[in-house]
Amino acid sequence: MNLPSGDLFEGFSDFQSQCLAALIEEVDVKKGEWLFREGAPADRLYCVKQGAVELLTRIDDRIELPITILRPEEGFFGTSSLVAPFIYSLSARSFKDSHLLGIKQSRLMEQMKQDPEMGFIIMSNLSKTFLDRLKETRQEVKIHFKTLFKVMRY
Amino acid sequence: MNLPSGDLFEGFSDFQSQCLAALIEEVDVKKGEWLFREGAPADRLYCVKQGAVELLTRIDDRIELPITILRPEEGFFGTSSLVAPFIYSLSARSFKDSHLLGIKQSRLMEQMKQDPEMGFIIMSNLSKTFLDRLKETRQEVKIHFKTLFKVMRY
Repeated sequence: MNLPSGDLFEGFSDFQSQCLAALIEEVDVKKGEWLFREGAPADRLYCVKQGAVELLTRIDDRIELPITILRPEEGFFGTSSLVAPFIYSLSARSFKDSHLLGIKQSRLMEQMKQDPEMGFIIMSNLSKTFLDRLKETRQEVKIHFKTLFKVMRY
Repeated sequence: MNLPSGDLFEGFSDFQSQCLAALIEEVDVKKGEWLFREGAPADRLYCVKQGAVELLTRIDDRIELPITILRPEEGFFGTSSLVAPFIYSLSARSFKDSHLLGIKQSRLMEQMKQDPEMGFIIMSNLSKTFLDRLKETRQEVKIHFKTLFKVMRY
């Protein structure tokens, strides 16, 4: 099986890639099916092999705000499964019938304990992913502030 | 010298703590002095030992938005020095005359290469820090959206 793309595992040796490949499971989901909900225990990360998955966040009881739609080769999601307290920070719903690759969090954590260099690589890539998202989200906040300043000026 | 608090180095062995302590430099800054500016190459991380440091982000050429004020025992800042492309994502200015502890990024990266388990610990803690900040910042965006929905409803 080909390894999933995405920069979470960038920098792996051939041996590390083989160890990772052994952890991968195939998952099929129907359109509209929830993979996980924000706030639930995070026990698995995924990437899209075929199809598309929508990530959303809850604004209140009625409104769920779409964050992004992930398609094949667009990297892993459910990555908060790798960070304490291991709770999903977003919800994920299949946008169409999809074929996914999944990795159980407990098995990957075990592998990283056995091979701390693998852990160092994954966690370095994960830090970069979260920092990039943080910068994008700060940018959104700035746009809101700029709009507010304009409104206040007039 | 006592090790700085903050969860970036939580989980270190005694030996790893000793290696870290050897990397720490003391830095004195006057009130109003810039430690670094958003967008500049990130070559050092810091924590406040005495005094206070303000973190800010640039909204536009004229407006700089305060993010937080860090006081002693409130952990490290300048942590984007540990993540490619090693560019500060915020600006830092001394809020009063302050005594800081600094660690050169290049020396810490070298140490992590030699001891990948140390790298695994630091990067796991850093991922958690960034994810926590991401969640807080998403919360701000949600508040803006909620306000917008209320305005649109009336």
